[in-house]
Amino acid sequence: MRHDPIIYSNRPQYNAGPLTLDELKLYEQNGYLLLENVFSEQEVANMLAELQSIWVAGAASDSSGIIREPESEEIRSVFAVHQNNTVFNRLSRDPRLIDVACQVLDSDVYVHQSRINFKPGFRGKDFYWHSDFETWHVEDGMPRMRAISFSVLLDDNLLYNGSLMLVPGSHRKFVACMGETPKDHYKESLRKQVFGVPDEESLTKLVTESGIDMPAGKKGSVLMFECNTMHGSNSNITPFARRNVFMVYNSVKNALQSPFSGGSPRPEFVASRAPQLVVI
Amino acid sequence: MRHDPIIYSNRPQYNAGPLTLDELKLYEQNGYLLLENVFSEQEVANMLAELQSIWVAGAASDSSGIIREPESEEIRSVFAVHQNNTVFNRLSRDPRLIDVACQVLDSDVYVHQSRINFKPGFRGKDFYWHSDFETWHVEDGMPRMRAISFSVLLDDNLLYNGSLMLVPGSHRKFVACMGETPKDHYKESLRKQVFGVPDEESLTKLVTESGIDMPAGKKGSVLMFECNTMHGSNSNITPFARRNVFMVYNSVKNALQSPFSGGSPRPEFVASRAPQLVVI
Repeated sequence: MRHDPIIYSNRPQYNAGPLTLDELKLYEQNGYLLLENVFSEQEVANMLAELQSIWVAGAASDSSGIIREPESEEIRSVFAVHQNNTVFNRLSRDPRLIDVACQVLDSDVYVHQSRINFKPGFRGKDFYWHSDFETWHVEDGMPRMRAISFSVLLDDNLLYNGSLMLVPGSHRKFVACMGETPKDHYKESLRKQVFGVPDEESLTKLVTESGIDMPAGKKGSVLMFECNTMHGSNSNITPFARRNVFMVYNSVKNALQSPFSGGSPRPEFVASRAPQLVVI
Repeated sequence: MRHDPIIYSNRPQYNAGPLTLDELKLYEQNGYLLLENVFSEQEVANMLAELQSIWVAGAASDSSGIIREPESEEIRSVFAVHQNNTVFNRLSRDPRLIDVACQVLDSDVYVHQSRINFKPGFRGKDFYWHSDFETWHVEDGMPRMRAISFSVLLDDNLLYNGSLMLVPGSHRKFVACMGETPKDHYKESLRKQVFGVPDEESLTKLVTESGIDMPAGKKGSVLMFECNTMHGSNSNITPFARRNVFMVYNSVKNALQSPFSGGSPRPEFVASRAPQLVVI
C-alpha cells in the first residue's frame, strides 16, 4: 500500500482553489480528475497549429526527443516541448495548470517532463498499462509520489479513438513490475514498453477489484492524474486523431536524486533535473 | 450507391418474425442490429469451453484454417468451425440465427464462412476497417449483397476491450478499395489487411457523414450486420478477452461464382462453395 499522501495540502487550504473540495475528494479517491472547458477553442486551435508544425518538422529530424513507432517510424511522441517551443512553454506556465498542481502538492512545482502524444487516426498505436511513478522512481530517481500529469486534450477524446483508460483507486496501491531495467532502456520503452510493466496476473487482480474508467472529454478539457495511477490506451483506427499535450509537474520538495535502479539517469529531455519553471 | 435490397422479404412477411417490424427497420437503416440475451449463460459457458479447447489444440497445429497474429504467432482467428466442431456446427444450424437470416434474405441460407475471432486480453490486435462484401465479391465470387454476419458474443463486449465499431448506413454505399488483389492474398489479409481496404480520404468522408456506432453488448447477445456494412475494431490491452464466434449466412439464391477478380477462388475454409447447411 501507498505511504505518501495524495493531497498534500492541509484541509483549511482546500478552499483556496482552484479545485473545489468536491473535486479534490474525487481526485483523492480516483487518482484522476477531468476538468472540462479549460482552454478555449481559439487556444486549442493555436496549440494544434503549433503541434502540426512540430509534426512536419519532426518527420526528417533525428532529435533524440522525437520518439517513433516501433514498426512504422511515424512520430509517436515529442518530448520537452516546454523547453523547445514557445507556445508549449507558455502552456507549461499557465496558471490553469500550475495553480492546481500547487494546490494539490502544497508547494511550488516545476515541469518534470512534457510531451505531445500524437495518436493519429487510422494507425494510432496503443500505450500499454503502466504507472508513471514506477519508471520515474527507478530510472529517474524521483523520491516520493508527489507529481501530477496534466493531459491537455487538443482533440475530442472519444470512446473509440484510443482515449486514456485509468484504473480508479490504483494510485493507492503499488504494483511491482517485472524484470531488471536494461541499460538505456528509455530508447525502447518510449516506443513500446516491455520491461517495467505490471504482469498480467497483477493487472487482472487490480482491474477486477477496481474496474476501468475511460473519461472521454472534449478538446480544451484537461485530464489530470496522479503519478501512481495505472493507465494505458488502446489503438485508434478511426479517422479521428487523438492528440494530447502532457505537462507533468513535480513538487520542488521532491527533486530528482540518483536513479534508484543504480543506473545512469535518463536524458534531460525525458526527465528534467532543474527544479524550476523555465521561460524561453 | 447500392442497388441490392437490404431486406429481401416482402412487407407482409415482415410480421412472421422472428424480428419485429421495428427491428427490421433499424437493421435496414443502420446496417446492423444488436439482439440481446439470445443465448443462455449455460450455452455461452459450453461454447467458451469448446473455444478454449480449440485455442489449446490450435497452438501447435499447422492447419490452414488457423490464422495467427502478424507479429506474435498467437492465434487470431480459427475458420470453418461449423465444419470441424460439433458444438459450433450445432450453433450454425441454430434457429435463433437461421430463422433471422431467412427472414431478412427471404430464402434458404447456408454458411458462407464461420470463424472464431479471439481477441485476447492484454495483446488483442485491431482489425482494420473493411466491408466484407468487397472481399467476398472480388475474391470469392459472391454475386450480390445478400448475406449477413452474426457475431455471437461469448464475452461481454465493452466500450474498451476492442468491441466492433460500425459505420451506420455505410451498407447503402459502396466504398471502392485500393490496389489489385495479390495472388494468395488471403494468407496475409486474414492476419493483417493492407490491400482491399478503403483509402483514408473515403473513410474520413464516410465517417464524418455517418459517425461510428460501437454497440457494446453482454455475452450471449448477437450482433448481426449486413455484408456491406463498414466495420473494424481497435486493439485490446484490458485484461478482458473479447471472444466472438461469427456465422455468415448467404442466400442459396446468391451462390458463389468464379471470383470477380479473375483469380483463383480462396480455399473452402474461408468461403464455402457448398450451398447447404452441413450436419456433422
